Amino acid sequence: MRCELPGAERCKGSWEGTGWRGERMNIQLLVWSADTIRQIRVAAGNLTGTGGLLIGNGSVTPKLVRYVISDHPYDDVGFDCGSHSGDAWLMPDRLEDFDRFDLPGRTVRPVWITIDIPGDAKPGTYTGKITILHAGTRDTLSLRLEVLDQVLPPPGDWQFRLDLWQNPWVVAEHYGVIPWSEEHLLLLKKHLRPYAEAGGTYITTYAVYSPWADNSYTLEGTMIEWSRNGDGSWDFDFSVFDTYVRLCNEVGIDRAITVYTPVPWGHRFRYLDRNTGEYVYETWDPGTTEFEKNWTAFMDRLKQHLDSLGWFGKTYLGINENPLDITLSAIQTIRRHSPLWKITYAGNWHPELSELVNDYSPIISAGVSKQELEQRSSRGSTSTYYVCCHPPKPNNFVFSPPAEGRFLGWYAAAMGFDGFLRWAYDAWPGDPDRDARHTLWPAGDCYLVYPGGNSSIRFEKLREGIADFEKIRILREKAAGSGDGKVRTLEAEL
Amino acid sequence: MRCELPGAERCKGSWEGTGWRGERMNIQLLVWSADTIRQIRVAAGNLTGTGGLLIGNGSVTPKLVRYVISDHPYDDVGFDCGSHSGDAWLMPDRLEDFDRFDLPGRTVRPVWITIDIPGDAKPGTYTGKITILHAGTRDTLSLRLEVLDQVLPPPGDWQFRLDLWQNPWVVAEHYGVIPWSEEHLLLLKKHLRPYAEAGGTYITTYAVYSPWADNSYTLEGTMIEWSRNGDGSWDFDFSVFDTYVRLCNEVGIDRAITVYTPVPWGHRFRYLDRNTGEYVYETWDPGTTEFEKNWTAFMDRLKQHLDSLGWFGKTYLGINENPLDITLSAIQTIRRHSPLWKITYAGNWHPELSELVNDYSPIISAGVSKQELEQRSSRGSTSTYYVCCHPPKPNNFVFSPPAEGRFLGWYAAAMGFDGFLRWAYDAWPGDPDRDARHTLWPAGDCYLVYPGGNSSIRFEKLREGIADFEKIRILREKAAGSGDGKVRTLEAEL
Repeated sequence: MRCELPGAERCKGSWEGTGWRGERMNIQLLVWSADTIRQIRVAAGNLTGTGGLLIGNGSVTPKLVRYVISDHPYDDVGFDCGSHSGDAWLMPDRLEDFDRFDLPGRTVRPVWITIDIPGDAKPGTYTGKITILHAGTRDTLSLRLEVLDQVLPPPGDWQFRLDLWQNPWVVAEHYGVIPWSEEHLLLLKKHLRPYAEAGGTYITTYAVYSPWADNSYTLEGTMIEWSRNGDGSWDFDFSVFDTYVRLCNEVGIDRAITVYTPVPWGHRFRYLDRNTGEYVYETWDPGTTEFEKNWTAFMDRLKQHLDSLGWFGKTYLGINENPLDITLSAIQTIRRHSPLWKITYAGNWHPELSELVNDYSPIISAGVSKQELEQRSSRGSTSTYYVCCHPPKPNNFVFSPPAEGRFLGWYAAAMGFDGFLRWAYDAWPGDPDRDARHTLWPAGDCYLVYPGGNSSIRFEKLREGIADFEKIRILREKAAGSGDGKVRTLEAEL
Repeated sequence: MRCELPGAERCKGSWEGTGWRGERMNIQLLVWSADTIRQIRVAAGNLTGTGGLLIGNGSVTPKLVRYVISDHPYDDVGFDCGSHSGDAWLMPDRLEDFDRFDLPGRTVRPVWITIDIPGDAKPGTYTGKITILHAGTRDTLSLRLEVLDQVLPPPGDWQFRLDLWQNPWVVAEHYGVIPWSEEHLLLLKKHLRPYAEAGGTYITTYAVYSPWADNSYTLEGTMIEWSRNGDGSWDFDFSVFDTYVRLCNEVGIDRAITVYTPVPWGHRFRYLDRNTGEYVYETWDPGTTEFEKNWTAFMDRLKQHLDSLGWFGKTYLGINENPLDITLSAIQTIRRHSPLWKITYAGNWHPELSELVNDYSPIISAGVSKQELEQRSSRGSTSTYYVCCHPPKPNNFVFSPPAEGRFLGWYAAAMGFDGFLRWAYDAWPGDPDRDARHTLWPAGDCYLVYPGGNSSIRFEKLREGIADFEKIRILREKAAGSGDGKVRTLEAEL
């Protein structure tokens, strides 16, 4: 695409769209030239309409679309979690603020235009212009936006449950700053903004040092430090946990907290031995006395801590992709401690587990039925679903057709899922701005956003699907409460 | 050094030193083991002495010494600015905070211990311990510190004029943050701390976009944006300039501001053409009407701006390594505008220039005499000297013997220089934490500190020499005012 002349039949100098108040519209425009052009600028005008309609150009944001390296070609499906490609393709994905750019001759540069329709914009027909300025001349594209008399609430009020797993140590490592330093927190705040603006629901926290298989580029630290005293008693330091949860709350992510995990990879737990001052790694298999004793001690303090902050009711103990027997064993320990604990599980679908966990995220291919999801809903339990390195389609890889991201929200609406889960929001490899490849997983599998709080085409399309989910929900609620019996019947049939 | 067994005859388990109140003492200890040891920690105890003497262990800071890649071996002198080495050596230089470290068998790890003697510490003899903890055992090193009844004032009160050129865009580029964003400013603040703590005197500012030869890894931006209006008049935007000067002031760098430069490389100037919205590059040779007209317009606004902020008296227009005729021509334009402008020049020594510039920094090899420097002092002018890629010795390369850094302050004291200048404080190449090499200059030439406000052995030794300069100055002032005629005579002879 990078050097291809955009097909003239697909190109036009205008855009038309229809949106709700509060909705974000995305437009991609392509700049191409036979000759090199320097200092190209893109400027948006106000959107206006008769009767004093006005959406200021502050709501219209152009971003440069930057290319990243993929290990698969566009729309590839011939692979699975285990298979690797040694090849490299460039994929347009990363969105970036810009002032001006140079366009080498016979290359195309995509520019992403976002129109954030204000929640209080008046319904009606708006027109406006995007101007491409270069070398003293200008090209103009016209916009025509129909704003409907429907309101999409702000993302903080969305009901879709979005669970993109975060690892704040990645941000510290990427920037080379000390974890939890003032500069780390400031960078994190910016970094979490796209998640918040997509209605990000779950705050990912870790009570265990590197709970997974030590195979992401930057390991997850623990947000709760375990220290064993000389007499065998435990101290737990929650300061990083509190800092991170509060930071997320500040940017508007405050509906759920997941604490990983009673069942880390290999059941490996780390603690600081106060006798020697050294970190010790031990294996505590669920079902053993050691596990029961230590996790009960931990849950005592954790519950007390969460209660004191008013966070207990929205906190989930999280278990990820573990065998059923191990998972059930860990759940028994949790329930013995308190039946009030909420538990979330991501992995294969086990009907016997569905009864036990308050939040369940099966993989999309698990074949969960709408009926099973309805049963969960009727019990007050929530359900999301996930994609990971599997399946090849639909997915959010950098080489996935962007529409697949939007499909994910539609699929949730159609099936009766409450939301969507993905590992990961930000498990960046070494050079995420340029190279989305990872030694183990398809490019883009492990992150959706780029450094600096920069969104991506993939992320924006995922967000569109979530907005669609909300719009469907709102319309169905309206239909269900309609005074017109036919509308109510149709909604019920749906 | 990295794998060498420290010579037993040079090793001892104790350190003794003598310092002034307010002085920083540096100690290097080496940890070596035949076998691999994990989780080594270094802990300092309080320093105490009879009569209730106490320096808390908060004043004793251990840092890990990290190795960086050099293009020359230790103490190499067989090269000059133009010559390149394709080889690589590891040099211990970067200092870094640490909690614990693993020591591979048969390697040595240097640890840098800093004792910051509080300004109000009581004179006397202090003893204390450094403990190396590992695998449940401990090694102890003893410290014995004699604190004299002399006070080294805080760096902000030092009279040594330290002029290490900064480029804040390097920090933005290295971290991948937007220049002058909130996170950039926070990172800069930390980054500038070592400079402030060494008595950093000059704030480096740029009134010209990329004033040098475009050959450092990250170009200098301009802190003052020039915009030419349709009618040919100029607007100057000082917002970045003000932001940077204020930031430096906040961390304690507030004695001098240098504005670069009336004479950029190739006399190339950039401005924003308001007619087209594009940046335009033009050549304005000093001596031409164009130069005179544009720089007079600029100096009008700059002077007005500096006056309004009370900064004019400490601001220098800076000219760097230019031919004498060009420099004189630029100075004429400046003096025609106002005889009150202060000018600083760094480069070869020209006696006819010495009369004209308020601050002169000849290269160390220029052969300036003590008499010439005295004449400058008597006129109220200041003088520093510099080293760059030349000479090979003394210098601050990563492969320079660290003592050369300390020598630089002694040399200033001996010759009658007021301080020392170096390009650069922070012109980092692509991977400064690991690789100090640059395609053009000897390793370490273009930076003295590392990302994250991390100091270096080189920088600490330079700082020691500056502290020595201050101590010499203080003692000579005391001697000159002594009631003992013999002391006064000796001082005068010195």
